[in-house]
Amino acid sequence: MIAPWITYRPAIKVLDCTIRDGGLVNNHQFSDDFVRGVYQMCVDAGVDYMEIGYKGSEKCFDHSKYGAWKFCKEEDVRRIVGENNTPLKLSAMIDAGGKTDWTTDVLPKSESVFDVMRVAFYVHQLPEALEMIQDASDKGYETWSNIMAVSTVSEIELDQALNALAQSPVATICVVDSYGSMYAEQIEYLVKKYLQFSCDSGKEVGIHAHNNQQLAFANSIEAIIHGANRIDASLGGLGRGAGNCPMELILGFLRNPKFKLRAVYHALQYVLLPLKKTVEWGPYPEYNLTGQFNLHPRDAIEAREGELCDRYGEFYDKIVTRE
Amino acid sequence: MIAPWITYRPAIKVLDCTIRDGGLVNNHQFSDDFVRGVYQMCVDAGVDYMEIGYKGSEKCFDHSKYGAWKFCKEEDVRRIVGENNTPLKLSAMIDAGGKTDWTTDVLPKSESVFDVMRVAFYVHQLPEALEMIQDASDKGYETWSNIMAVSTVSEIELDQALNALAQSPVATICVVDSYGSMYAEQIEYLVKKYLQFSCDSGKEVGIHAHNNQQLAFANSIEAIIHGANRIDASLGGLGRGAGNCPMELILGFLRNPKFKLRAVYHALQYVLLPLKKTVEWGPYPEYNLTGQFNLHPRDAIEAREGELCDRYGEFYDKIVTRE
Repeated sequence: MIAPWITYRPAIKVLDCTIRDGGLVNNHQFSDDFVRGVYQMCVDAGVDYMEIGYKGSEKCFDHSKYGAWKFCKEEDVRRIVGENNTPLKLSAMIDAGGKTDWTTDVLPKSESVFDVMRVAFYVHQLPEALEMIQDASDKGYETWSNIMAVSTVSEIELDQALNALAQSPVATICVVDSYGSMYAEQIEYLVKKYLQFSCDSGKEVGIHAHNNQQLAFANSIEAIIHGANRIDASLGGLGRGAGNCPMELILGFLRNPKFKLRAVYHALQYVLLPLKKTVEWGPYPEYNLTGQFNLHPRDAIEAREGELCDRYGEFYDKIVTRE
Repeated sequence: MIAPWITYRPAIKVLDCTIRDGGLVNNHQFSDDFVRGVYQMCVDAGVDYMEIGYKGSEKCFDHSKYGAWKFCKEEDVRRIVGENNTPLKLSAMIDAGGKTDWTTDVLPKSESVFDVMRVAFYVHQLPEALEMIQDASDKGYETWSNIMAVSTVSEIELDQALNALAQSPVATICVVDSYGSMYAEQIEYLVKKYLQFSCDSGKEVGIHAHNNQQLAFANSIEAIIHGANRIDASLGGLGRGAGNCPMELILGFLRNPKFKLRAVYHALQYVLLPLKKTVEWGPYPEYNLTGQFNLHPRDAIEAREGELCDRYGEFYDKIVTRE
């Protein structure tokens, strides 16, 4: 046996989702300085993509409650990145199911500072998702897709969705472990399945992991071993509930010299640490449990925000005994 | 492909090292109530082994500085466990290199409440370790061995050590990732190597992982996938520096119905949480860095105990630039 881990695979690209997924912790109410700090970290560290937020519908989401990164208007993004004359590509997430007015809010690429639109959808929203992918692609964007909560999707429906995506213009199809419930063997199984549907058409497979069981980084490594070339990560693992795969860990693992780890550790100290004093995320035992039981983390989030916080035994009993 | 993760392997046994490894955080100064709580958790949860401490030399270690679990005298252990009339087996760690007066302090099994002696040694201490294994075995104990800091050992020396252990009476040989530096592929490589040397003689391979890169649980899964049947874990991951594989995660993963997860979550709340307010452990960015650089965690521990705490950027620069 050789030591493949000592070298690197140039095809692997990293997407920073600190602002987009992290915003689910604080309704995207980040200061401009924070967003600028993450942007600069991405540029300095050689990160390939930065997902700066959602293009949320202003009919659904109220500006008085949500910060700018829930909407990602061009003027807000340009206030941070200017014309983004860097190798970093910018992405916005667009949700299916009425959460995004994509026909109007996704501008033609020529009028936008964005490079990528990532379509997030539950499997029953596939028809709209395919229209969104086609629309964004026609407007000139690279498109990605996230089939959410795949740990609750039946095999036959997943195969059908992957088959349809394979015939769409989508460039990347991500394995998304929304509940942080998956172990290495399940990641291997899904990555191989996604690749089977997508590799003939030259598409890439990505991984978006959650850290409910302290497996976000490990499952990202597992996905890489089996052929995923697009990896989501966030500074300090910032993200809803248990959070995501930490950027400081994945860039330490990837040995491509283009990645500069120093920028990440400096951003951890100077950008992230002040935020950490005001919001909470991480693999607390409540999230371990919802992950183990393949549940949406909302029960755990509610527990940590209320009287059940840190009452792990009582939370276990509540989850196990309810009918 | 079938779904092997939905079933379980009866041969897998779990060792709790909460007190032994956790004691490196607080010089083994645990209250009797804490040790009793962990013991009861092990019994209730169906854990197979509990490593309750070291048999440290009273010449080397001062009773005024170290608690009872640095020495594991019979009377102290019996104060907690009585005659231990349970299926749980009790283990003590004995260190090579003059840290243990093993000829005198390891009593004949007939006079002891212990079932297992685990010999920990650096590879250059192999000759003494082999004598310790033989001695403990002759005295009637099941013996285990930990070759420490294997990520810094040359292949030729490791092969030699494994060859010698294969001919000894040791029952279990553990892959020990002392620095928390190893990734999945390295764990796979070492577990397969250890098995190659040990399986003909009916020995088991174990895994003792550290959480510097949030990989302790994941690397334990990886070791299991490749044939390790002995798994170290601790309540809440309590252990030196970044800590160990969390018991609440590994028992959730192992689907053997003999394991009772409820006992662990209750112990997390009622036993561990009060301690967590007085001592610190976990995969802080300083530990991420020493893991990534394959360094002993002592620099990170020192940083977190001093002025450099949470100054990740400065700590990065210090580690990278020193000569």
